[in-house]
Amino acid sequence: MFLASDNSGPAHPQVMAALAAANEGHAMPYGADPIMAEVKARLRDLFEAPEAEVLLVATGTAANVLALAPYAAPWQTVFCSPVAHIHEDECNAPEFYTGGAKLTLVPGGDKMSASALAETIAGEETRGVHGPQRGPVSITQVTERGGVYSLEHLGLLCGVAKEAGLPVHLDGARFANAMVALGCTPAEMTWKAGVDVVSFGATKNGAMGVEAVVFFDPDKAWECELRRKRGGHLFSKHRYLAAQMLGYLANDVWLDSARAANAQAAKLAEGLKARGAEFLSPVEANIIFATLPRAAHQRLHEAGAQYYLLSGSLEDGDADEMLPARMVCDWSLSDEAVEEFLSYI
Amino acid sequence: MFLASDNSGPAHPQVMAALAAANEGHAMPYGADPIMAEVKARLRDLFEAPEAEVLLVATGTAANVLALAPYAAPWQTVFCSPVAHIHEDECNAPEFYTGGAKLTLVPGGDKMSASALAETIAGEETRGVHGPQRGPVSITQVTERGGVYSLEHLGLLCGVAKEAGLPVHLDGARFANAMVALGCTPAEMTWKAGVDVVSFGATKNGAMGVEAVVFFDPDKAWECELRRKRGGHLFSKHRYLAAQMLGYLANDVWLDSARAANAQAAKLAEGLKARGAEFLSPVEANIIFATLPRAAHQRLHEAGAQYYLLSGSLEDGDADEMLPARMVCDWSLSDEAVEEFLSYI
Amino acid sequence: MFLASDNSGPAHPQVMAALAAANEGHAMPYGADPIMAEVKARLRDLFEAPEAEVLLVATGTAANVLALAPYAAPWQTVFCSPVAHIHEDECNAPEFYTGGAKLTLVPGGDKMSASALAETIAGEETRGVHGPQRGPVSITQVTERGGVYSLEHLGLLCGVAKEAGLPVHLDGARFANAMVALGCTPAEMTWKAGVDVVSFGATKNGAMGVEAVVFFDPDKAWECELRRKRGGHLFSKHRYLAAQMLGYLANDVWLDSARAANAQAAKLAEGLKARGAEFLSPVEANIIFATLPRAAHQRLHEAGAQYYLLSGSLEDGDADEMLPARMVCDWSLSDEAVEEFLSYI
Amino acid sequence: MFLASDNSGPAHPQVMAALAAANEGHAMPYGADPIMAEVKARLRDLFEAPEAEVLLVATGTAANVLALAPYAAPWQTVFCSPVAHIHEDECNAPEFYTGGAKLTLVPGGDKMSASALAETIAGEETRGVHGPQRGPVSITQVTERGGVYSLEHLGLLCGVAKEAGLPVHLDGARFANAMVALGCTPAEMTWKAGVDVVSFGATKNGAMGVEAVVFFDPDKAWECELRRKRGGHLFSKHRYLAAQMLGYLANDVWLDSARAANAQAAKLAEGLKARGAEFLSPVEANIIFATLPRAAHQRLHEAGAQYYLLSGSLEDGDADEMLPARMVCDWSLSDEAVEEFLSYI
Repeated sequence: MFLASDNSGPAHPQVMAALAAANEGHAMPYGADPIMAEVKARLRDLFEAPEAEVLLVATGTAANVLALAPYAAPWQTVFCSPVAHIHEDECNAPEFYTGGAKLTLVPGGDKMSASALAETIAGEETRGVHGPQRGPVSITQVTERGGVYSLEHLGLLCGVAKEAGLPVHLDGARFANAMVALGCTPAEMTWKAGVDVVSFGATKNGAMGVEAVVFFDPDKAWECELRRKRGGHLFSKHRYLAAQMLGYLANDVWLDSARAANAQAAKLAEGLKARGAEFLSPVEANIIFATLPRAAHQRLHEAGAQYYLLSGSLEDGDADEMLPARMVCDWSLSDEAVEEFLSYI
Repeated sequence: MFLASDNSGPAHPQVMAALAAANEGHAMPYGADPIMAEVKARLRDLFEAPEAEVLLVATGTAANVLALAPYAAPWQTVFCSPVAHIHEDECNAPEFYTGGAKLTLVPGGDKMSASALAETIAGEETRGVHGPQRGPVSITQVTERGGVYSLEHLGLLCGVAKEAGLPVHLDGARFANAMVALGCTPAEMTWKAGVDVVSFGATKNGAMGVEAVVFFDPDKAWECELRRKRGGHLFSKHRYLAAQMLGYLANDVWLDSARAANAQAAKLAEGLKARGAEFLSPVEANIIFATLPRAAHQRLHEAGAQYYLLSGSLEDGDADEMLPARMVCDWSLSDEAVEEFLSYI
Repeated sequence: MFLASDNSGPAHPQVMAALAAANEGHAMPYGADPIMAEVKARLRDLFEAPEAEVLLVATGTAANVLALAPYAAPWQTVFCSPVAHIHEDECNAPEFYTGGAKLTLVPGGDKMSASALAETIAGEETRGVHGPQRGPVSITQVTERGGVYSLEHLGLLCGVAKEAGLPVHLDGARFANAMVALGCTPAEMTWKAGVDVVSFGATKNGAMGVEAVVFFDPDKAWECELRRKRGGHLFSKHRYLAAQMLGYLANDVWLDSARAANAQAAKLAEGLKARGAEFLSPVEANIIFATLPRAAHQRLHEAGAQYYLLSGSLEDGDADEMLPARMVCDWSLSDEAVEEFLSYI
Repeated sequence: MFLASDNSGPAHPQVMAALAAANEGHAMPYGADPIMAEVKARLRDLFEAPEAEVLLVATGTAANVLALAPYAAPWQTVFCSPVAHIHEDECNAPEFYTGGAKLTLVPGGDKMSASALAETIAGEETRGVHGPQRGPVSITQVTERGGVYSLEHLGLLCGVAKEAGLPVHLDGARFANAMVALGCTPAEMTWKAGVDVVSFGATKNGAMGVEAVVFFDPDKAWECELRRKRGGHLFSKHRYLAAQMLGYLANDVWLDSARAANAQAAKLAEGLKARGAEFLSPVEANIIFATLPRAAHQRLHEAGAQYYLLSGSLEDGDADEMLPARMVCDWSLSDEAVEEFLSYI
């Protein structure tokens, strides 16, 4: 009953097999090996973007900041949600990698509204050289609260950005989960909607630790390579990053894994709902924000269930007080775990 | 016949086995798993340093800069060899992670002499607030030219640093190769000699991609953790870093691998010498800098041997002109490869 | 009728005289001259802080960021008002000088409330190594909207900061204007209330361009000196900064100038009120935010009055629509200018 | 007898007069005043560069780093002399403002030779993404050792840079001293030779504290304006920077001042030579590096002469041992001072 995060599940067997297969003899370092060539070709195909450039890194934070930095000058500001990972969970990594750019939080909830974004952009850069200059818009898909932007919504946000002449970054740490939820193609969820660069996550969905930064404008790639190197993110034994990605993409493992995670979340949500849980936000992918009575939390806790209580104390208070929690389903979560979880409520 | 670098060999089977073993069910992320606890205990044991703090990262550059940054303020300068990896091969990563510190190159060759270091240190910080302030000394062991500092030499360098009140960093990308060459303990090659923080490399010697930063002063560790996070180097599925390190250290695999690499280098050097090669620097670990006639290079090249020619053209020139090259033996290099290599000369 | 900003007035004659007096023969550079010694002694006296350290710079932004940087690590966040100068008007200078720290905006208006500050601080650093760490609190006195924190209010804010173990910076670009408004001493408005470092502005109140950074903890001064130097803010002909400050402080010119500016603002506010203006915020020092009918703005504009319209168009709209504007009185503003200004309404 | 530095003399009366004249009533801040418009027009004229963009700052370090930063990406390296001010005397300001670029020291003495520069440039960027990338060449004119590059020499250096596709920065802290020594025009010593951006110093030659950054490629100016602002170098009461520059340039004061300083240096050098001094480098502008017997140094010291002894102790040693010293003549140095100085030798 591990629902604390999808960053805690195992690697998919196919990823492990790809690593084992890659572990033969010597290979050229730093991405100059044949596996990386295959990865690049595969992602270009998937994204229907034959010119796209692809860089691999090992963490989601690295992917985000290396995707953003070539687009965000030190005197600019990045527009994002107040709960964006780049703002709340990266210990100022964007500020570090951009050389001191700012993050401007678009008011509202988890999902940015196009009008709030437009208003926020309009509010910046009205002070000439004194204020920060407008920089990229960063959108998180799946959002931090488990929401999935529709293609139309994405298109509107990108439209607002384009209107202002701003590039768009998509933080796709849970790219596959969003994509299967929408039933769309990678291209539709990125460049066709107006996205310029995407952090294409694999770690949370079955890899050990690999993410791709995909630039639809290949001219940004060389700067990003230099930034990756000086960030300490260029692997010498790069084939092991590439092998993970290849194993992840082969045979639709990435899609099947995302579908499995989303399905467990849906099942869990249904069960929670039937048991009286209230939802803080709609369950659109593999993340649930819901309230349960303290007594249920206590039973789950005693049974060893792992997930985050968002506020309130497990110990002190009424048994039936509703306390909010976050539960995340990863690709490997079993039916039994979900059922067991529900059985304690 | 792959001798281009020891960053190009495969991972050791025991590392792969450790990864497979770690790949069971869910685990707490970010290093809060039991494998990391084991790694920390193991390294503290090995280093005879029960207070030491240990952080894992995936690349040597990350290890170096995260080891240095807590010791090098932006207005300081790091003393190092003109051919140090941190100077020549990290695309200004130290400058980036320190927030703009400088690197001061200690004149001389690959190995720093204590007197040159002392003189260089004396030459800095004679300009008050105007010049850079003195910062840490960074020593590379095995050196970039394949040399190994004796314990006495290391002690002298650290003594010079201490005299000036400066901390010492050891870039141990090839830590094990040096250690087995010296026949000493990890403690002797580090804190007993005066080293404050070490980049303890595993990648080149049989891991996929993992390096430990070991702080003998545990007070520096929290700052380093924050820097690791904002550098994008904190793995969520951290168990796969820890598992690699555990597999690397178990059953003396790390020592055996280093011994194997050094032994092949010694055998290769002997063979080269017998065939008239001249050596640019003594072969003390697993790296060889030697000259061979152009014709030998041509034959090796045609046979598919991989190594770096340091200058001169393979094609144009006298057949018997001696051209310098670098050859590096990794743990997996076979006897056959060495013999075949020699057979072409 | 120049009310656009108090950064646009002339230098006070006594400042000019001090510069002329300083312009004799040679003087030791970089602050090692007797005038700087006098300035330091004078400010220590004024602040009743015999240990305080004093650094001079030429701009308010330089003073702010050099005051903050020694207190704000790159992985921390600075707490400030959403309209703070350091956030809105310094083109990411704090992010630059701190090496990538973040600014966390305390919700509410211009003046921070102690409860909002406490809540915001409590909200940060709940994410361990993932989120930014808590850093200094920066308070602006006079606020950007013309408010003056009472000593009690200041004490409460500092108390909240201290409770959380955080240092406090006071942006005193208009220090004197606030002080005379409160009728308090420099010590009362700073260290006695709990302030650790202050940007003590002189430029807006009669100097050409000089601000003091006053550290009540002298241990921070050397780091600040190094940061000032590498920021390019250490004047070689430093005597001209020191002379300005000395001229500014002598004979209570600084206090008289601030009183004059505040008095003109009070007179202007009274006149505006009598003519039906509405005030966006109370007039507590030398800054006025008030609305006037479009027709009045038009007449003022035609008459050459300089001030900022905050929104709305001068040209298009009803003559009696109320449009908000900012008016700032500097020390040199004449009675005639104020009266003339009022006459157009 | 103040010969410690030309940063220690007074401001020229004409500069003071310009300041006084500028100190009338209100003026638009941040450079939007008529005096700045005049300065820009004047410098464009002087440089015969009608498109050039001009920014004023108050210190030489600020000018250098703001000139360099738009040309030096964080992953690049700046080529300069081992004794360049940007390397030795700015406490890592270039590393700070470029976001972590490196400085590569061109071997040789004070003046760079074109061949050494070419060789050094060729040596960089042979390591692909691993090493720093080639960045701008920075040339100091007058050099730190008092040398003046001939126009031909300058042209050669710029030619080497252009061949490699690199921009050229001229650190002209003593621009006028070099120009009058060469008897050339500003254009000849800059863009006609191949210089892209110049730090045009005024402080050392008669201003209080003002330097111009002149971009011959106006497209770099906006980035530089943003960098100036976030560096804290944009003056609100900017007219006082502009007035200094205007006063400095009017009536050839800048040229006369430089001629006076150079002439005193020539006279002093002649006198020193006649008294047996040995010169460490040719005296080509207003700086002298020469040796004098210890006894002479002692007499000068006792008489209150101010200059820097470069090595050796004033107290201990033979009376006739020759000790090297640096003497700098500023525009205000009197004949009497020079004669008195010589009289003690």
